[in-house]
Amino acid sequence: MTGKIALIPGDGIGPEIVAEAKKVLDTVAKKYGHEFEYETLLMGGCSIDAYGEPLTEESLEKAKASDAVLLGAVGGNVGNSRWYQVAPNLRPEAGLLKIRKGLGLFANIRPAKLFSQLKDACPLKPEIIGDGFDIVMMRELTGGVYFGEHKTEEIDGIRKSTDIMAYDENEIKRIAVKAFEVARKRGKNVTSVDKANVLDTSRLWRAVVDEVAKDYPDVTVKHMLVDNCAMQLVMNPRQFDVILTENMFGDILSDEASMITGSIGMLSSASLGAGKLGLYEPSHGSAPDIAGKGIANPIATILSAAMLLRYSFDLDEEAKAVETAVEEVLKAGYRTIDIMSEGMTQVGTVSMGDLIAEKI
Amino acid sequence: MTGKIALIPGDGIGPEIVAEAKKVLDTVAKKYGHEFEYETLLMGGCSIDAYGEPLTEESLEKAKASDAVLLGAVGGNVGNSRWYQVAPNLRPEAGLLKIRKGLGLFANIRPAKLFSQLKDACPLKPEIIGDGFDIVMMRELTGGVYFGEHKTEEIDGIRKSTDIMAYDENEIKRIAVKAFEVARKRGKNVTSVDKANVLDTSRLWRAVVDEVAKDYPDVTVKHMLVDNCAMQLVMNPRQFDVILTENMFGDILSDEASMITGSIGMLSSASLGAGKLGLYEPSHGSAPDIAGKGIANPIATILSAAMLLRYSFDLDEEAKAVETAVEEVLKAGYRTIDIMSEGMTQVGTVSMGDLIAEKI
Ligand SMILES: CC(C)[C@H](C(=O)O)[C@@H](O)C(=O)O
Ligand SMILES: CC(C)[C@H](C(=O)O)[C@@H](O)C(=O)O
Repeated sequence: MTGKIALIPGDGIGPEIVAEAKKVLDTVAKKYGHEFEYETLLMGGCSIDAYGEPLTEESLEKAKASDAVLLGAVGGNVGNSRWYQVAPNLRPEAGLLKIRKGLGLFANIRPAKLFSQLKDACPLKPEIIGDGFDIVMMRELTGGVYFGEHKTEEIDGIRKSTDIMAYDENEIKRIAVKAFEVARKRGKNVTSVDKANVLDTSRLWRAVVDEVAKDYPDVTVKHMLVDNCAMQLVMNPRQFDVILTENMFGDILSDEASMITGSIGMLSSASLGAGKLGLYEPSHGSAPDIAGKGIANPIATILSAAMLLRYSFDLDEEAKAVETAVEEVLKAGYRTIDIMSEGMTQVGTVSMGDLIAEKI
Repeated sequence: MTGKIALIPGDGIGPEIVAEAKKVLDTVAKKYGHEFEYETLLMGGCSIDAYGEPLTEESLEKAKASDAVLLGAVGGNVGNSRWYQVAPNLRPEAGLLKIRKGLGLFANIRPAKLFSQLKDACPLKPEIIGDGFDIVMMRELTGGVYFGEHKTEEIDGIRKSTDIMAYDENEIKRIAVKAFEVARKRGKNVTSVDKANVLDTSRLWRAVVDEVAKDYPDVTVKHMLVDNCAMQLVMNPRQFDVILTENMFGDILSDEASMITGSIGMLSSASLGAGKLGLYEPSHGSAPDIAGKGIANPIATILSAAMLLRYSFDLDEEAKAVETAVEEVLKAGYRTIDIMSEGMTQVGTVSMGDLIAEKI
């Protein structure tokens, strides 16, 4: 098959890790007889430097015209960089919000899984993690307080700010359907997280999730308050299979969940919409402090490329091949510095990419 | 001295644990020559049963007329109880929100501390907790999305809900001042948590916190994004001293922080306003599943009573005496079932109260 992939390296370690993921995609193309056409686009700080804005309309249009987008990371040290001395809608992260909304990517899928080879990195005690956990966070990505009106005004000399959190039933329904579909192929267990004892959006969320659940009698659904979920993730993460939640809660809980795996450098993500076009990116950030040093872990981005193959191109076998290659390299004892432990062989970004590509 | 204390036992285990805290307060009164006058008020499910609403105006007025309020817990099994078959503003938790707002309690102080005797209960690995951690969460309690307008409507047959998150500078300033004051008496370190890369309320929050920080040159202040904070609490909780945040983020993060101590049955809280009147309650909930069994841990409520003595009555010595008594009882090996471990002596709610009272 032929496919058009937009590459958005972004800032910080972005270019280094995207280069390795591209290397892996090239290897897949060669081995399985596919042809990927790439176009590199600017987004984030690098786009601010080049065009004065974090994502130009032209880049957004090019992303829309592609079959899939592979992203590194955007942004820098908030507050310490020239990129943050401007209006909020001109900062690097605004590019990310703009592309999510522009591409209609309402479903953010973030697997948080404990790799058996990296069990020691988990900050939780062995008796809590048992033989590991494997959660999928399904976060709504184009609604909620992220995309309601934001306003700051001065009334009688007093500054006041307002952010509007809003959801309509269709926005909730489509992400709920995706979550139940994902759960059906996994542990058949959805935990829907909200704050229904306080928020109207959460009460609507709960009602709509219950309605959608009726079409999935084979999937168990449970509702949990967000504060409780933040506790349960630490106390008993193995109770979860698929966690379904709104944008802001998903932002917080998915980071918490990824940290309890102990290896955020390993975690991929996919942001999907109604069609096949998706955006794939590592769960971690741009790590400006280690940019350019050749030590960043490219695995999260490589695994994001695997998700790209699976979700945007339906290349399940190829996706599996990438995932297996990663596991084999880990089994062989190779580690980047962030996941290094005694007795293992430390390698840099490029070598890690090479090693994984070789195993495909 | 003489003081008027409103007791609000509430639901579930509430009455059992408040009885033990009262026992301790009585012992303090006797030993130190004070006189506490008590009035018992209904709030939560029990008030719904009695009056059809979670907190009557009369009870609120009586709470206002007291010097301090000691609360057990309100609510039951959400969804499984008759208390939740009514409109949101008639549910048990609405009583809690109403009393917080009615008493102007804008500052919620929740210490999350690892008790040295209970280190084993911490879900984090020993190398992460080191010789323990001791955090204070300062949560804004009467603003933000909790108290903005909540609305659900149907437009062209589509249900839509909206919640408004709002803060003005004065609301931020007063909680920030409290946080810096608390930090000054502790580790002199404030981490202010927001989502300034997305929310206007967070950008205002950050600006006002920086303004307040100027009056506290001896206190270090750092800003952290809420998603990052949710990670850092798990990865490196010892970096924190005082965490300052808005209402919703504080709800989530304080529960996460309390869970990483591993003993939520031990954690107290105080909700304060501009004057001396405060509301004191355990950080845990009403635990309906173990209500009436005599096994609930009363220590969080007893330690909340200690905070009551300290903040509402300026009885620092007496507060310390209660805290020391709790430590001695733990040292002597007594445990309720939730904190039980090998070689310790298991006791019930009443015995635990007796043991602590005896040590005063
Ligand atoms: C950079 C930021 C706007 C973004 C978000 O909050 O969604 C990030 O934290 C994420 O989770 O992808
Ligand atoms: C019961 C609920 C409304 C309350 C809150 O969200 O504030 C509780 O979770 C808390 O933290 O005290």
